[in-house]
Amino acid sequence: MSMNPPAEPGDELWQVDTPALIVDLDAFERNLDLMADMVTQAGVKLRPHAKMHKSPWVALQQIERGAIGACCQKVSEAEVMVAGGVADVLVSNQVVGAPKLAKLAKLNQQASVRVCIDHIDAVSEISAAAEAERVVIDTLVEIDVGAGRCGVQPGQAALELARAIAADPHLSFGGLQAYHGSAQHRRTPQERKEAIDSAIAGTTETVNLLAENGLECAIVGGAGTGTFELEAASGVYNELQCGSYAFMDADYAKNKGADGGPFDTFEHALFVRAAVMSRPSERSAVVDAGHKACAIDSGLPVPWAMAGAEMTGMSDEHGVIDITTVNEKPERGDAVLLIPGHCDPTVNLHDWYVGVRGLHTPQARVEHVWPVAARGALF
Amino acid sequence: MSMNPPAEPGDELWQVDTPALIVDLDAFERNLDLMADMVTQAGVKLRPHAKMHKSPWVALQQIERGAIGACCQKVSEAEVMVAGGVADVLVSNQVVGAPKLAKLAKLNQQASVRVCIDHIDAVSEISAAAEAERVVIDTLVEIDVGAGRCGVQPGQAALELARAIAADPHLSFGGLQAYHGSAQHRRTPQERKEAIDSAIAGTTETVNLLAENGLECAIVGGAGTGTFELEAASGVYNELQCGSYAFMDADYAKNKGADGGPFDTFEHALFVRAAVMSRPSERSAVVDAGHKACAIDSGLPVPWAMAGAEMTGMSDEHGVIDITTVNEKPERGDAVLLIPGHCDPTVNLHDWYVGVRGLHTPQARVEHVWPVAARGALF
Repeated sequence: MSMNPPAEPGDELWQVDTPALIVDLDAFERNLDLMADMVTQAGVKLRPHAKMHKSPWVALQQIERGAIGACCQKVSEAEVMVAGGVADVLVSNQVVGAPKLAKLAKLNQQASVRVCIDHIDAVSEISAAAEAERVVIDTLVEIDVGAGRCGVQPGQAALELARAIAADPHLSFGGLQAYHGSAQHRRTPQERKEAIDSAIAGTTETVNLLAENGLECAIVGGAGTGTFELEAASGVYNELQCGSYAFMDADYAKNKGADGGPFDTFEHALFVRAAVMSRPSERSAVVDAGHKACAIDSGLPVPWAMAGAEMTGMSDEHGVIDITTVNEKPERGDAVLLIPGHCDPTVNLHDWYVGVRGLHTPQARVEHVWPVAARGALF
Repeated sequence: MSMNPPAEPGDELWQVDTPALIVDLDAFERNLDLMADMVTQAGVKLRPHAKMHKSPWVALQQIERGAIGACCQKVSEAEVMVAGGVADVLVSNQVVGAPKLAKLAKLNQQASVRVCIDHIDAVSEISAAAEAERVVIDTLVEIDVGAGRCGVQPGQAALELARAIAADPHLSFGGLQAYHGSAQHRRTPQERKEAIDSAIAGTTETVNLLAENGLECAIVGGAGTGTFELEAASGVYNELQCGSYAFMDADYAKNKGADGGPFDTFEHALFVRAAVMSRPSERSAVVDAGHKACAIDSGLPVPWAMAGAEMTGMSDEHGVIDITTVNEKPERGDAVLLIPGHCDPTVNLHDWYVGVRGLHTPQARVEHVWPVAARGALF
């Protein structure tokens, strides 16, 4: 049911079928190297989020550079990561239902696959699954530090869950999951700092309360690409869960950096390569990538290196670029690169990554074609 | 690389893993029957769009009820439809590039796979591909009747392309592609009528001009679920390309019907079944379906049969429902049905359809599990 790959290793760029998911391997590797340096200097650990890339191949590149494992949002993602050789996974999410928990427990026979809870019933549910598979499951308490999704409030509620985990013979208490998702895309460094200051305060309060009660948090996890420097410097978070830094999307590029200038710490390394299938007028180029090839939940993609061009609309299979003020207008049949608005759901639309060396040079050449192995891992 | 199915035929509803794509088979079949009756009464043909359902199984159900074939947007979709037994396909889109055209030509050795053009260069490109595979490709001229995407303007420009097609020994002139996409979701019947009146005028002008020049349009195709009754009654369109009528999404349900009341000609037959994974407060239920399971390009999904509930946000793997005013609040672990905002891209996120008989009854039972065979068919 998965499609044939749009390219083969060794292909030149023009041979890649469209629309295809392209990784600029040079920029990608620089992003991984830079983040590895930054976390080392900050004295924290990196557990990058695999929900973004859906690929053991990417996870192993990160682990090679010092990452301690991977995060997943779904048990089915964790299955793909473990099968691909990732030995330490945190499912940074709630998992409900006996069949999913049975899979989670079984995975723990092969690897360390931790999970989060935010309800007392989850303790007995996960414990039963762990007992059935004769494993001990390391379990974290998720606290809501501002994201407004899952999680208990910081403080007493977290203590009660942590105690129940620690008291269970089939579970070990792993620490806290304290991710502030909605802070990542606040545009100014001040807005992000306010949000993360509040997250740090709630997390610190909870870590201290637990310590007073004899419960040590081995993992205090959170942070994304928009705020990780704040959590890294907090003194309380010890594992960063950034994902998008590896590829860097157009929405993150709308953030202002710490100095108020552009947030250009990381380079755009992910593109959708599309072909112009119609040039109905001097003002418009229609490409063969719509929102089934490039997710638009966080805004339209941005055409790469085409000054004056603006994407004005995407339907399922069409993308319309306003090229009124573009000097060298793309012609019918030409390929264009689009920077996706949001990496994660864009990657999830494709079966294959096409890794290109020297992407923006005349020598561009396909080096890797690797599967988006956990694409569609919804369960 | 595709995921295991979330259910097996014979399963009860509670056994279906979440999040899963559910088809209410009873409503689905009623939708197909109703449209079949409507097109018969109108004296036009139905060529439903497979970009919506991505499944030969669905296409064959439509053909069994009188549909003459299927539309696709991509050659790779057409490959899946032909492999699944659909003998008459129209690629209702531009196809650019020799490799794609070679595939299109090869497919014509097995089935009738027509295509559209909006540029004179396409004539020689498609002709070369047809000659190489020793086939004749039926080719339509796409005219822009208001959608503002691909297509030449009605009238003279279309005549020139039609003449070039008719003069080519490896092509046959098939008619006109005249779809007004953006008219489908205009909310009032007056707005839709204005848009389609204009489309009908441009199409009629073109058909007449071609006839005066000895070129007959065997196919005059267009129409979607929002406007098909207008095209059906136009006297000029003879093939309707509706897709969403089979499943009916939340965005179409926001249209007003011809009488100014709700547009309820068709029933909601497609759902994402999700589980509540957290109940962080009395006001909020968080489900395990985000926009990787339910596309949000046309708005958030609508919870089914939960009066007062409102979806307030979706991130990649989380959906948040405001249940403040809901009387019977869903508990942690309960399943809910979501009506997707937009069928087409939602279907494209899933590997499997779970077809349920008696969905909204206590006897609900899985009857079919069939693949979304053309999911990810981007090429």
